Amino acid sequence: MSIVEDFDHRWAQLLPVGRHSGTGGYRRYAWTREDHTLREWFAGECAALGLDLTEDRMGNQWAWWGDPDRSPGVVIGSHLDSVPDGGAYDGPLGVVSALSVVRELKDHGFTPSVPIGVVNFGDEEGARFGVACAGSRVLTGAMTPERALGLTDADGVSMAEALRAAGRTAEIGADPAALARIGSFVELHVEQGRALDLMDPATSAVAVGTDIWPHGRWRADFTGRADHAGTTALADRQDAMLEAARFALAAREAAARRDGEHRCVATVGKLDVRPGGVNAIPSSVTAWLDARSPQESLVRGVIEDLTAMFPDAISEESWTETTRFHDALTTRVRDALGPDTPMLGTGAGHDAGILAQAGVPTTMLFVRNPTGASHTPEEFAEPADCHAGVEALLTVVKDLAA
Amino acid sequence: MSIVEDFDHRWAQLLPVGRHSGTGGYRRYAWTREDHTLREWFAGECAALGLDLTEDRMGNQWAWWGDPDRSPGVVIGSHLDSVPDGGAYDGPLGVVSALSVVRELKDHGFTPSVPIGVVNFGDEEGARFGVACAGSRVLTGAMTPERALGLTDADGVSMAEALRAAGRTAEIGADPAALARIGSFVELHVEQGRALDLMDPATSAVAVGTDIWPHGRWRADFTGRADHAGTTALADRQDAMLEAARFALAAREAAARRDGEHRCVATVGKLDVRPGGVNAIPSSVTAWLDARSPQESLVRGVIEDLTAMFPDAISEESWTETTRFHDALTTRVRDALGPDTPMLGTGAGHDAGILAQAGVPTTMLFVRNPTGASHTPEEFAEPADCHAGVEALLTVVKDLAA
Repeated sequence: MSIVEDFDHRWAQLLPVGRHSGTGGYRRYAWTREDHTLREWFAGECAALGLDLTEDRMGNQWAWWGDPDRSPGVVIGSHLDSVPDGGAYDGPLGVVSALSVVRELKDHGFTPSVPIGVVNFGDEEGARFGVACAGSRVLTGAMTPERALGLTDADGVSMAEALRAAGRTAEIGADPAALARIGSFVELHVEQGRALDLMDPATSAVAVGTDIWPHGRWRADFTGRADHAGTTALADRQDAMLEAARFALAAREAAARRDGEHRCVATVGKLDVRPGGVNAIPSSVTAWLDARSPQESLVRGVIEDLTAMFPDAISEESWTETTRFHDALTTRVRDALGPDTPMLGTGAGHDAGILAQAGVPTTMLFVRNPTGASHTPEEFAEPADCHAGVEALLTVVKDLAA
Repeated sequence: MSIVEDFDHRWAQLLPVGRHSGTGGYRRYAWTREDHTLREWFAGECAALGLDLTEDRMGNQWAWWGDPDRSPGVVIGSHLDSVPDGGAYDGPLGVVSALSVVRELKDHGFTPSVPIGVVNFGDEEGARFGVACAGSRVLTGAMTPERALGLTDADGVSMAEALRAAGRTAEIGADPAALARIGSFVELHVEQGRALDLMDPATSAVAVGTDIWPHGRWRADFTGRADHAGTTALADRQDAMLEAARFALAAREAAARRDGEHRCVATVGKLDVRPGGVNAIPSSVTAWLDARSPQESLVRGVIEDLTAMFPDAISEESWTETTRFHDALTTRVRDALGPDTPMLGTGAGHDAGILAQAGVPTTMLFVRNPTGASHTPEEFAEPADCHAGVEALLTVVKDLAA
């Protein structure tokens, strides 16, 4: 079986897992039944390949060919969880490609000079507990176990409770030993915008990642009074919805003023309206803002504009400066793939970014997305481009483990 | 014990039931444990007063002094359920006042010429299943049992399942025999705006209701595409949140253009944002609009404005024309209370309105609300005004049952 056929075969196995029949999107959330199914599938595939499966102290799954405690290895892989009604490619494309690469190497008698590892990071999307890359953040110490365990889902279930309900221990924590096994990490991922689609089609099926844009998350809290929608005169109202609506529009306008060659985006994707009754004037609305740009100053400018318009409402929940991938590794990967290979920064966060921040030599490969659709059931990559991706990953691993 | 002391005593009994320790508001939803506690309390109080307790086919509780099957009676009472984090007065004020009136009449050897009934309507607020006045709507046939049983709460539990879980039958339906027992219905209720507070303080503790304003509920559905908030260029986006924000602001502006002597209000109190992730551009947002005015044409004008701005987005979920209370009954009640008693229309819906639409002679009494706060923990009425309310209700029942 060729590597492409192997990829197609594995890809088909994953398609039904956690797919919602109504929306066609995926609902694969951390420490749920669907997540368990995916972890079991990963473990089974790795066992069939003769890899040694381990878990770090956060439950991320690592499958090793060779002993990484003797010398650090080349790690490939990604994650299998999804956003609510996400697409099939975001995460699984990297995991499936990695498994196919290992099978191809084994089938052809390749003898790696360093161990090769395949990773399945847990809880990358943060769909359930609200913090993206929770698996790699705890692993690297970027998030304390105390904070992670105390995060709650929409039903008020804490991560500690979810871990126990999944039959696991809540004794999680940073794992320097697991981290030390990673000599280099290359995460293959579907592109989540249209940057490659807008380039020369002949050479843009796969790109090498250069950096993750600076990005942040803010919350804006607006307070009103929950009077009766039928009986409270307009003049007597404090309607928190109106301020929140102005905020959502102002955020978009502030980003648009700065958007240009360097791009700048701002999004209000989540609102919490209290009390949330059709006949009750909102007493509070919290709006969450996501803003990113390749230029830190542009994002900061958006927040300054909004703070001037909505003083006291806005607080920062997270801020991440530009994460540059490892220059020597990125250059070597690009050299292996050829000089026409595009180089691409990304506005999306990834476990690769968390590892890079922790000092692990890290880079990424991006597979072209013809529509830019991402985090939606419509997310798509052409089979030919997926195949180009897995072939590129094979080339890279052959080079790094030669 | 005076009627005022009796009222204060009963009032204190109800205060802890279903009160949320965090918000201080009440969470008394249909067919829950809290609802059961309230129904048991009502049954116990009625039994202690020597009343005959019955239920109609929808589970609304009726307690009779005298036999209403021989001649229709005078009914007083209201409801005990609440909106999410509602106040103490909305509903219970009418039920507690009714019980105190009956005790006072019995204690003083009053001999009613017609039966006197006290009612506790179920599920008035519609907080759990989304339809207000569900108890009186099914009773009168304004809502079919099929529709009621199929309504679902936020957890997807249908009313049929909720009834069974509460140990009840789901064999609900209209009950003409129960309705025929009501010769007249007088519902005492806290005012939910500041109309009385703005009148002469000396004569505005209690008003007589004249009508319920025409009112309606609409939904506006906005469609986008759930792309990634970090990687999708502004120009490539279809962000449903932006249209929904414009809609919320436009609704307020359209009502404000018509607001004046006759009042006109419009409120967006509930939004459903999908997929609802901080890093996902909203693929759909549904906004619910509540609009009311004493003048039907003003409400219709608001909807016309919005439909012109957002064609194809808006659909009507419900519309109720002006509900006039029974003219002869309203006049008689006012005559009993004296010529200085204010007359008041209301923008809020009530079981009294559902009964009036079903042809039952009905009117209301409103107790002054000094802040207009309603459907919020801050909802309040001065004890002196509550006492004026129960005294007024006593006067009215003495007159109607003399």
